[in-house]
Amino acid sequence: MEINTRNIIGYADSEGIKKTLQGVNPVNGNLLEEKFFLASENDVNDAMSKAVEAFVIFKNIPNEQRALFLERIASEIEDLDDILVARASLETGLPKDRIIGERGRTTEQLRMFADYIREGSYVEASIDTSLPERVPVPKPDLRKMMVPLGPVVVFGASNFPLAYSVAGGDTAAAFASGCPVLVKAHPGHPGTSALVGMAIIKAAKETNMPDGIFSLLYDSGFTIGKALVGHPSAKAVGFTGSVSGGRALFDIASQRESPIPVFAEMGSTNPSILLPQALKNRASQIADVYSDSITQSVGQFCTNPGLLFAVRGDGLNDFINHLSSKISKSDAGTMLHSGISEAFREKSIEMTNQLGVEFISQSNNEASEAEGKPTLAKATGEVFINNPKLHEEVFGPFSLIIECVDENELRECVNNLVGQLTTTIIGEDEEFRNYSGLINELREKAGRVIFNGVPTGVEVCPSMTHGGPYPATTDSRFTAVGVHSIKRFLRPVTFQNAPQAILPEALKDDNPQQIWRYINNELTKRMI
Amino acid sequence: MEINTRNIIGYADSEGIKKTLQGVNPVNGNLLEEKFFLASENDVNDAMSKAVEAFVIFKNIPNEQRALFLERIASEIEDLDDILVARASLETGLPKDRIIGERGRTTEQLRMFADYIREGSYVEASIDTSLPERVPVPKPDLRKMMVPLGPVVVFGASNFPLAYSVAGGDTAAAFASGCPVLVKAHPGHPGTSALVGMAIIKAAKETNMPDGIFSLLYDSGFTIGKALVGHPSAKAVGFTGSVSGGRALFDIASQRESPIPVFAEMGSTNPSILLPQALKNRASQIADVYSDSITQSVGQFCTNPGLLFAVRGDGLNDFINHLSSKISKSDAGTMLHSGISEAFREKSIEMTNQLGVEFISQSNNEASEAEGKPTLAKATGEVFINNPKLHEEVFGPFSLIIECVDENELRECVNNLVGQLTTTIIGEDEEFRNYSGLINELREKAGRVIFNGVPTGVEVCPSMTHGGPYPATTDSRFTAVGVHSIKRFLRPVTFQNAPQAILPEALKDDNPQQIWRYINNELTKRMI
Repeated sequence: MEINTRNIIGYADSEGIKKTLQGVNPVNGNLLEEKFFLASENDVNDAMSKAVEAFVIFKNIPNEQRALFLERIASEIEDLDDILVARASLETGLPKDRIIGERGRTTEQLRMFADYIREGSYVEASIDTSLPERVPVPKPDLRKMMVPLGPVVVFGASNFPLAYSVAGGDTAAAFASGCPVLVKAHPGHPGTSALVGMAIIKAAKETNMPDGIFSLLYDSGFTIGKALVGHPSAKAVGFTGSVSGGRALFDIASQRESPIPVFAEMGSTNPSILLPQALKNRASQIADVYSDSITQSVGQFCTNPGLLFAVRGDGLNDFINHLSSKISKSDAGTMLHSGISEAFREKSIEMTNQLGVEFISQSNNEASEAEGKPTLAKATGEVFINNPKLHEEVFGPFSLIIECVDENELRECVNNLVGQLTTTIIGEDEEFRNYSGLINELREKAGRVIFNGVPTGVEVCPSMTHGGPYPATTDSRFTAVGVHSIKRFLRPVTFQNAPQAILPEALKDDNPQQIWRYINNELTKRMI
Repeated sequence: MEINTRNIIGYADSEGIKKTLQGVNPVNGNLLEEKFFLASENDVNDAMSKAVEAFVIFKNIPNEQRALFLERIASEIEDLDDILVARASLETGLPKDRIIGERGRTTEQLRMFADYIREGSYVEASIDTSLPERVPVPKPDLRKMMVPLGPVVVFGASNFPLAYSVAGGDTAAAFASGCPVLVKAHPGHPGTSALVGMAIIKAAKETNMPDGIFSLLYDSGFTIGKALVGHPSAKAVGFTGSVSGGRALFDIASQRESPIPVFAEMGSTNPSILLPQALKNRASQIADVYSDSITQSVGQFCTNPGLLFAVRGDGLNDFINHLSSKISKSDAGTMLHSGISEAFREKSIEMTNQLGVEFISQSNNEASEAEGKPTLAKATGEVFINNPKLHEEVFGPFSLIIECVDENELRECVNNLVGQLTTTIIGEDEEFRNYSGLINELREKAGRVIFNGVPTGVEVCPSMTHGGPYPATTDSRFTAVGVHSIKRFLRPVTFQNAPQAILPEALKDDNPQQIWRYINNELTKRMI
């Protein structure tokens, strides 16, 4: 199968500025054969013009047809079979099994969104019927529903080459909402991006979607990303990556003449609190579970547990000994690309070199330049509170244990945390009762609070929140995972005294889609 | 009754920087007696510290108690009776009848929110139960609900001294959500602000709310507003006012180390499209309705109809003649304060002096410096499209009629509009069928599309959207009016595998509040 190495501008292709980038096999640093054309600013303009035109049609396409399009993308991705799996594994160093799992998540997300919009209640229809006789003024007929924002810019993530890249969660949510999507491919996996982009174009054509609902652009730097986010026709942005990258996009978007919302999912140290009774009862068991969580996919998850807090004592000592031994026996692994493995090495050395930080253990493996070694270090609560550096994320398998002198210091550490995707508390059920203030504070700091588990493993379901206060994301009011992530790309519109013939299906008297609606404050599926 | 002229810092008062500001009677420019103390930056810090402490308690207060607090504010406002009505009228020049109407809207909003949170489903509870046997990994129990963001900064609006000021829509929404509120009083009506602030404090004390959920600060400039929005403990901002003011706050908030959301409701010209058949059939009747809408409250509504578009012809000529005659017979009226009346005069002269703009008519009244004269002008579609100045709002009773050569030019005018709170279309039912593209575009430009009505008159109900694309607001995904405006101040949190005892009421198995919840994707009130 030949990979399309050109920028995809709707149903056309472009060789952009005629320069190219290549994928790299992170295991050996070798360049991969295919040369992908870097996009030009003209490509950005063309893709946006097409998206604007496509939007006029796409936003009014019935939910059923949009659902079929999403399902078709899923099956086109599956049809790529081992070509896609092999390519993604080659470009990211992630094992094929992990890629297969991630592909399952990707297609599942697409199908979940298809079901969600097919059911239809996501438009949050609300109807207040008129009171023509009301004094002093008649009450008009008001009908509200959510409508799509317009062209959405999506940035592929390095650590999820499928589930948070070209046809990942952001793209699925935007398409489901009725928004065209313009993806800036992550330069770390251009071949994977191209294959998925081709699948989307095929699905779009075969389900008769308008030209322009999807474009895919390559760039090795920041020019194209900036141009996309700064373009007057862009209406929203989805991003998964570093704090510096996400913040840069947020700044561009909010300093535009007409600002647009950016949902950037960025850094998180995913703090875990280990309570004394639990440590006393099951230190080694907890250490086993955490060892797995820390080292999984070479720690390259946004929910990797980077900070572990506990009060000093025998329980914590047991835990540290056990975890230390597990980490030393753990394997080093190839990281996503050389930039990430270098940053990991530098940042974990920088951390362990901080005053008061004690190195504990590291994988015994001989590791190549491309590999990351799971690493464990320790500091006191006081050191942690006074050194902001220790609050930063180290992307990769690095965890820092914070040993507190007592519960008060533990509480102070938690109060000092910045926003997180997750916080976790490990304790015995009877123990939780004594820590309600702490649990309250953990809730304040994060989008998800986990009890007796680990932060890794983000279930894709409606009740998931993958979000949280800054710097975990740029807007804590939304989630990046699950069907409710569609809310990022929708806005309410009210129709006042509109004739039935003009109203969208969701707001017509006879409720042809049989959706849940609020009618005069009552939630119902009935007709009017 | 003695008015508290000090800054309200929770349950304490402060004389701030010891300097004062005074209200002004806009009719004669006379200073009113009471001197209100300008807040210091220390006051901001104290109010924020108290708000942070109060939030820990306030966010966990049962909905029923928060509802009682809101209702108590409403009845305390009513108890102020003519003292409040007289003061608001004195400070704003708005007639007592208008103030009484606005007070009704204010108390109604508070009671609507009380009912809304008492019912409880607003937390959008969603539960996915566990599948412990699932392979390869068990599915955890996930339970999501909306929780409050934290301290909210609210800016009082000049044109709604009650309904969008100290205890207005933003404050009601924030309190309902569980967020403490810090209000920067509008300097145009300090006495009104103080009276309402005192009512809130009384209600808070009598319903046992924690010290710090409410503060009220005075400033004649921008120092205190900036300090509030820039304070690290502030979590969101609500604002109603000018584009320049709203944008300045948005810029401060988004350039913070930790950015926070700003919902600023700003400018709108509320374009109306008058279709030919309707003009042919009922030009004079439409002109009557528009004349009332343009001149109501001296045009000082954010939904005042500033732009009227139609295709040239006899119908439009009839309409213009009729409207012109009504406007010339209309009364000039005292505007909110001298800054607004000056700006209105300058801006309406600037508009009518633009190349290609033709003056049509103006109120025949002799008008004082303090008064605004309803004014009508006209330009061609071509002139409008090519002059961005004509797209700007003139706050007050100024309307510009845009005469288009044909439907294409009308369409082009609409395409060129910036974001609006409302768009309106006047037409015959059979006529609408031929304008579906245009109606689609009107939907794209605004938060509310009105059929055969006028944009003024914002019904307070769940199906209202008072919002729209920039510059109508800084975030089109929210509304400032109606119970759904609470969404601006809420964020989702997921509890994973939490013990029943730890879970908030809304997420417990037995659904003690009997709220609507999504359980495994099914909307239900049942228990688990």
